[in-house]
Amino acid sequence: MLVIKLGGSAGLDYEAFLDDLARVEEPTVFIHGGNAEFDRVSKQLGIEPRHVTSQNGQSSRFTDRETLDVMLMVYCGKINKQLVEGLQRRGVNAVGISAIDGRIATGRRKPAIRVLEDGKPKMLRGDYAGSIEDVDTTLLTLLVGAGYLPVLTPPALGREGEAINVDGDKLATEIAVALGADQLLVFSNTPGLLADVRDENSLVTSISLANMAEAGAMAQGRMKKKVGAAQDAIERGVGRVIFADARVERPISRALEGAGTTIIA
Amino acid sequence: MLVIKLGGSAGLDYEAFLDDLARVEEPTVFIHGGNAEFDRVSKQLGIEPRHVTSQNGQSSRFTDRETLDVMLMVYCGKINKQLVEGLQRRGVNAVGISAIDGRIATGRRKPAIRVLEDGKPKMLRGDYAGSIEDVDTTLLTLLVGAGYLPVLTPPALGREGEAINVDGDKLATEIAVALGADQLLVFSNTPGLLADVRDENSLVTSISLANMAEAGAMAQGRMKKKVGAAQDAIERGVGRVIFADARVERPISRALEGAGTTIIA
Repeated sequence: MLVIKLGGSAGLDYEAFLDDLARVEEPTVFIHGGNAEFDRVSKQLGIEPRHVTSQNGQSSRFTDRETLDVMLMVYCGKINKQLVEGLQRRGVNAVGISAIDGRIATGRRKPAIRVLEDGKPKMLRGDYAGSIEDVDTTLLTLLVGAGYLPVLTPPALGREGEAINVDGDKLATEIAVALGADQLLVFSNTPGLLADVRDENSLVTSISLANMAEAGAMAQGRMKKKVGAAQDAIERGVGRVIFADARVERPISRALEGAGTTIIA
Repeated sequence: MLVIKLGGSAGLDYEAFLDDLARVEEPTVFIHGGNAEFDRVSKQLGIEPRHVTSQNGQSSRFTDRETLDVMLMVYCGKINKQLVEGLQRRGVNAVGISAIDGRIATGRRKPAIRVLEDGKPKMLRGDYAGSIEDVDTTLLTLLVGAGYLPVLTPPALGREGEAINVDGDKLATEIAVALGADQLLVFSNTPGLLADVRDENSLVTSISLANMAEAGAMAQGRMKKKVGAAQDAIERGVGRVIFADARVERPISRALEGAGTTIIA
């Protein structure tokens, strides 16, 4: 089983990606994000995206109920269904779902978060975000077994049946672990992990658990979360994780041929 | 098998509806619309909804690609997932999908339509709307068989893999026919078919195919389409169709107990 995650940053080549995805023969679960479009549509609706920094320095999006509804529109509506359209156009019988459908991923909502604003600690309430605690692969296995390609997106489901914003890379990790995937491919707008974030030629081609700490120290911004999620995936049995570029032709084939950063045990 | 359609007009009591839906024991496919919210979000995004009248007097929404993307956001995103959340909160393991997923409903897009604007005939191009020609129940049957409640919404899939706006009542009819449903329940913001559209006490409690022409003549606006779709459903083998009110407590139980307008052969 292959788990493929496509990020949601700007500048990705969706057409090339779907062309290549349509050629994959191995049973696959396809997971996507939607961050850039989320920001764009939020602003269009007059809701300024609110990014907050927690006390341990982690940046995240504050998701009040209004923002969560925009998330449903962008991730589960526009992006998910446009990807399904693109796959159907290529003859792939895709089924677009979110992790709340069939209780695929459930977790705990953290309604209040401690953040730093202008250097001052502050408690923000009304957040619809949380972390995944359980994965139920029944629906995904049912779909893959019947020959469909599941196209999966956040949010996940809170303990009280409410949607919660969860990190897309962590969702991909949890799904890959729960399915016992051989490989988890994580695509974004970078060639992989870079030794120098300003230099795309400084690609780190391979990381093992032994030099994971070093890799984590090298990683900047969102890549830090990705490295953590990849380590977690490998430690919990996923064969290998590949970080690769979604801005190129044949991105999946290239990743499987060795492009990008490969993480192994 | 029960097929339940919930309209998308304003003023419906979603909480009461979901409370009642959670009590249904018969295998069910749940279909929803989203018209009022579609208009609301379109306007919020600065896209004025464009309703056009065809030469034979039928009113419809002109759906250019930008409008179609809003439809994906509202129907497949916000409304579909809020309904899934509401059902999950009540312990029902719902799975929200659109008719493009798994190629549930496919049809022909009519890219150009002849309309009357200010009494003058005009050809409008770039419409993403069409009519359903084929239904594949494989995915719905798979989900229902595994104990999930499918929550289904337009759009459907055009011949070239593009999403097309289709009428929700017609989608419900096609699904009920293809599944050989015993009953199709159609809920909206009216007690059923009214002899006098201004008088909610003038409910027509029962129609048979024999007096369908009379009922069709009585029906105004959207109800005309509903009566046509119901006739079609009955003629093609659905046991009975019920038009009922979604603004009341226990709407589904009441409809099954005889409230609303029952259409039989």
